[in-house]
Amino acid sequence: MTLKERDKKHLWHPLTQHKLHPEAIAITKAKGCVLTDEDGKEYIDAIASWYTCMYGHCNPYITNRVANQMQQLDQVVFSGFTHEPAVKLSEALIEILPKNQNKLFFSDNGSTSVEIGIKMALQFHYNQGRKRNTLIAFEDGFHGDTFGAMSVSGLSVYNGPFEEFFLDVKRIPTPNGSNHEAILKALQEIVETHKVAGFVYEPLVQGAAAMKMHNAEGLERILKFCKEHHIVTVADEVMTGFGKTGKHFASDYMQTKPDIMCLSKALTAGLMPMAITSCSQEIYEAFYSDDIGKGLFHGHTYSANPLACTAALAGIELLQSEEIQKNIQHIKASHEAFNVRIKNHPKVKSTRQTGIIFALDLNTEMARYGNLRDKLFEFFMDKGVFLRPLGSTIYIQAPFVITDEQLQKVYQTIENSLSIV
Amino acid sequence: MTLKERDKKHLWHPLTQHKLHPEAIAITKAKGCVLTDEDGKEYIDAIASWYTCMYGHCNPYITNRVANQMQQLDQVVFSGFTHEPAVKLSEALIEILPKNQNKLFFSDNGSTSVEIGIKMALQFHYNQGRKRNTLIAFEDGFHGDTFGAMSVSGLSVYNGPFEEFFLDVKRIPTPNGSNHEAILKALQEIVETHKVAGFVYEPLVQGAAAMKMHNAEGLERILKFCKEHHIVTVADEVMTGFGKTGKHFASDYMQTKPDIMCLSKALTAGLMPMAITSCSQEIYEAFYSDDIGKGLFHGHTYSANPLACTAALAGIELLQSEEIQKNIQHIKASHEAFNVRIKNHPKVKSTRQTGIIFALDLNTEMARYGNLRDKLFEFFMDKGVFLRPLGSTIYIQAPFVITDEQLQKVYQTIENSLSIV
Repeated sequence: MTLKERDKKHLWHPLTQHKLHPEAIAITKAKGCVLTDEDGKEYIDAIASWYTCMYGHCNPYITNRVANQMQQLDQVVFSGFTHEPAVKLSEALIEILPKNQNKLFFSDNGSTSVEIGIKMALQFHYNQGRKRNTLIAFEDGFHGDTFGAMSVSGLSVYNGPFEEFFLDVKRIPTPNGSNHEAILKALQEIVETHKVAGFVYEPLVQGAAAMKMHNAEGLERILKFCKEHHIVTVADEVMTGFGKTGKHFASDYMQTKPDIMCLSKALTAGLMPMAITSCSQEIYEAFYSDDIGKGLFHGHTYSANPLACTAALAGIELLQSEEIQKNIQHIKASHEAFNVRIKNHPKVKSTRQTGIIFALDLNTEMARYGNLRDKLFEFFMDKGVFLRPLGSTIYIQAPFVITDEQLQKVYQTIENSLSIV
Repeated sequence: MTLKERDKKHLWHPLTQHKLHPEAIAITKAKGCVLTDEDGKEYIDAIASWYTCMYGHCNPYITNRVANQMQQLDQVVFSGFTHEPAVKLSEALIEILPKNQNKLFFSDNGSTSVEIGIKMALQFHYNQGRKRNTLIAFEDGFHGDTFGAMSVSGLSVYNGPFEEFFLDVKRIPTPNGSNHEAILKALQEIVETHKVAGFVYEPLVQGAAAMKMHNAEGLERILKFCKEHHIVTVADEVMTGFGKTGKHFASDYMQTKPDIMCLSKALTAGLMPMAITSCSQEIYEAFYSDDIGKGLFHGHTYSANPLACTAALAGIELLQSEEIQKNIQHIKASHEAFNVRIKNHPKVKSTRQTGIIFALDLNTEMARYGNLRDKLFEFFMDKGVFLRPLGSTIYIQAPFVITDEQLQKVYQTIENSLSIV
């Protein structure tokens, strides 16, 4: 029996309605930017397996380090204990994070990193005797699938069964260059009528909302407003972190830095799950007390897993290398050239780019998980390119190590796909 | 600078009030049941690093397999794709799970596995047009730290800042052999006044409540009641799973099987984070539909990570080996002999045991994170035994591969510690 057939017996896949999508493609090998399925067919991984393996699949610089770590120390409780991979990672990560970030709290995925960010924001006020229980978030944001993370996600297409249990969240539009005064007015109204603890946001690019991009100057004004009103700012950089926007973090584009940052996905270079919620010294100090109850009583068993920390440290070293930084600039320039070629195509409604993230909206209406979207996905896979359209948006977020030849094939395949739209 | 000193700069540890507990012990090596710190001091890991590394640290049977997998396929999106490690793991796990379990949904830690269990229970009813939004849980249960998981946790010592956002949960006592009629009466009252979607529980042993153990016959009656009232039963076996109770799962002690099971910790044999929420075919079918909205729209990026699946499969193979099964029986018998020796000690209030989990309550009052507890912890570490008392409870949950000599040292150290109480 093939893996594809055996898969159907016991596996329930994420974000999948199995009756409508019964078939999974069985991948047996991954190397660099190429995935190989059980029939030997190859696919260019043009979305870096959900924006994780930015230095290429099975990169020996990373896997050798993790293999060595596995001989030395696999796992230890991170309450009351520490270890070299966590210490080294903390020093390297603080070095590249915005200057105000000073403490790191570990967990295992983007959802939990956001839950921790929310809990830090709520308890920051609570510990100082202020009851502030409303959160602000962007419309169409996505922050994860656990109850706290779902609450701040505005992209609630399928949240029906759970909505009545959500935290109290007020939503504002993303800044687009012409709505900034209106947003500030809306914020003013919210703070006058609610006790706002925090603002949770994806800076500059909203991934699940189909790589929707917004205005840095507008975001700057929102962040300034939050600072003035002691609203804790929580930047969800799970998708945007680690070089994808052209800088190490999307938050590097603004002068006003977030109080808290959520990191995952490319953090561990596509090897295994881990997340970090970082914060400023000011946030940390609100929990630092002789009163044990003011601590953050949150903890996952595999927090700061030494193997994951080792992968993350190797990844950060690669990110800072001249080669990867050159690649980022090169991919950025390639996308710009592709944009000139594609933006006026009659089937293309609009294009946008931030760093190595390129997106184009088709000139047609499509359901997020509808038939046309599936037809496009199948077209791409048939041509050997793994792209995962979100409704009528096609986007590229390839590993930093993608070759020119591979990149040109991705572009050409997208251009060819327009004829079937 | 030592690791211990470097640790203090940027690391915020889980479940830690850093002002009261500024020092972390830096572990540099782990092998079998022994942890080694940066001064070369050795500690027997008598709680298996939070009940994870049951086959010993850095076990080459597991690490070699993961090292090979790292050369082949590190990570791929698990929506629309599958791979051999996930398929093989699903086949091996279904083989040892209670017979009614048929589908596996992946996530990254115990908290998310419970969030998924709760979402499955709520949506199971929602998809069939029933609005049932109350959950039942045990008093003093612990199910994790994300908002949904916190809601069902009754052990809410430090949940103050978050409580107003919790799901609607009714609590019942754990069955103790003499309160079963009272519990059933309480259940009857709950179902008459509330629309109950599910019952979330730790079967037989409540870990964070200090290894509190309850009555299997009583639990059987509760589970039967739930079945009769179409209440979805969600067994949180994150701590109890994989041989610790003497059987593969605590649920194996009851005739009535849970609809949903949450697995993590020892699932990946102490190597890296992963979790699974398994369920019966009946649960799965309530989501299987031509209506895409009836699917479970939940997904974490590293779902079914091939490395973690590989570790889990190797772990299950070891669990089923004659050697490990013999060890489990041997540790169980050793604990029983230790119990005879210790239970009448004047400082011991009570003892209890389920499988390889042994706990004793001291004849003294202690705060959960108070000074006396810290004094005991320091005594154990000083003597080279890693035990982590929960308030006035000392418990053992050592790896299955602990040697007789190591086990006797753990017992002797516990006995000696009674003189400082």
